[in-house]
Amino acid sequence: MPVPLLVTFAAGVAGDWRVDRIEPVRGAGLEGAARLAVVEGTGVGVPTGARWTLRGVTSHLRYTTEVERRLLIARQPELGRLQATRAALIPIRKREAWWMLAQDERRAILEERTQHISTGVKYLPAVARRLMHCRDLGEPFDFLTWFEYAPEDAGAFEELVGRLRESEEWSYVEREVDVRLTRGIEDGVRTP
Amino acid sequence: MPVPLLVTFAAGVAGDWRVDRIEPVRGAGLEGAARLAVVEGTGVGVPTGARWTLRGVTSHLRYTTEVERRLLIARQPELGRLQATRAALIPIRKREAWWMLAQDERRAILEERTQHISTGVKYLPAVARRLMHCRDLGEPFDFLTWFEYAPEDAGAFEELVGRLRESEEWSYVEREVDVRLTRGIEDGVRTP
Repeated sequence: MPVPLLVTFAAGVAGDWRVDRIEPVRGAGLEGAARLAVVEGTGVGVPTGARWTLRGVTSHLRYTTEVERRLLIARQPELGRLQATRAALIPIRKREAWWMLAQDERRAILEERTQHISTGVKYLPAVARRLMHCRDLGEPFDFLTWFEYAPEDAGAFEELVGRLRESEEWSYVEREVDVRLTRGIEDGVRTP
Repeated sequence: MPVPLLVTFAAGVAGDWRVDRIEPVRGAGLEGAARLAVVEGTGVGVPTGARWTLRGVTSHLRYTTEVERRLLIARQPELGRLQATRAALIPIRKREAWWMLAQDERRAILEERTQHISTGVKYLPAVARRLMHCRDLGEPFDFLTWFEYAPEDAGAFEELVGRLRESEEWSYVEREVDVRLTRGIEDGVRTP
């Protein structure tokens, strides 16, 4: 995949993912919708008439060191695994105070005090992840985070999300919405 | 100024800055033009029919530590000083190899081995600077760098640019164009 890769999330009546729930975690939520389409690239193929659309770009590593990166590369799975039928789209915006910090201060909060990267590693390879940036794009969020996991790993994923939300880093989050999804299932024909 | 602030540079026949020269430094250059308009904000007021347009956003600090930031804040002047009638717009794109490096590796090259930040500090307050990011915007460059200085500081500015171009960091630059400008002077009435 080329980097930066533009990824568009369009919530409405079309898309490969069924929306199971949309919950505001902090700040304003997002409107309800039945399905979510995920479109990679310049936006060709984004369903028209979406209730809401969010855009972000994959990018280079902003905090990760080379040692951490080697660990991540060794453990992290690709997106699109057949058994990973559950997904979470969690858009996040951080407070102005976060962005006013220097790079070393943000790194200290993110990893030395929150263990964001090393905590995430513990949940690999169960959870596949993609981080998209959108602050520079004039979008309502700073990041779009995307996770894919198998139903049997849902407990582990909730634990990961819960640990991060209690962290010092999350004290800088001013808006967060939690969108949960199931792949491919048509409305009304959910398998048990 | 709000951050991120979108800044659009439009080269053509309109704008506050007269184009003195446009030189390709590495890779493809940019088409010649008589004047350059610099438009802050969502793009309202960008002259139509420009030969080329480049867009970037001001953003948070990507490498600067808190200690370095305090030094910069204490010394750096604002844009728009009356005596700073000369400007340089230097768009830069770095090789894929740069972007594939982890954060600590890029920081080591940029500051510990190139002294990019500490070299820049030496030329303050003579040179006012603004850095805009555009890699995430799908633009042809990764950064747009903008400098304003008085005619008597032109020598110091050339020295700064020359030192950076000889650095290890610059071995990662694959495209660079150097656009030099003078504020306000109408075509054909250049003062000596």
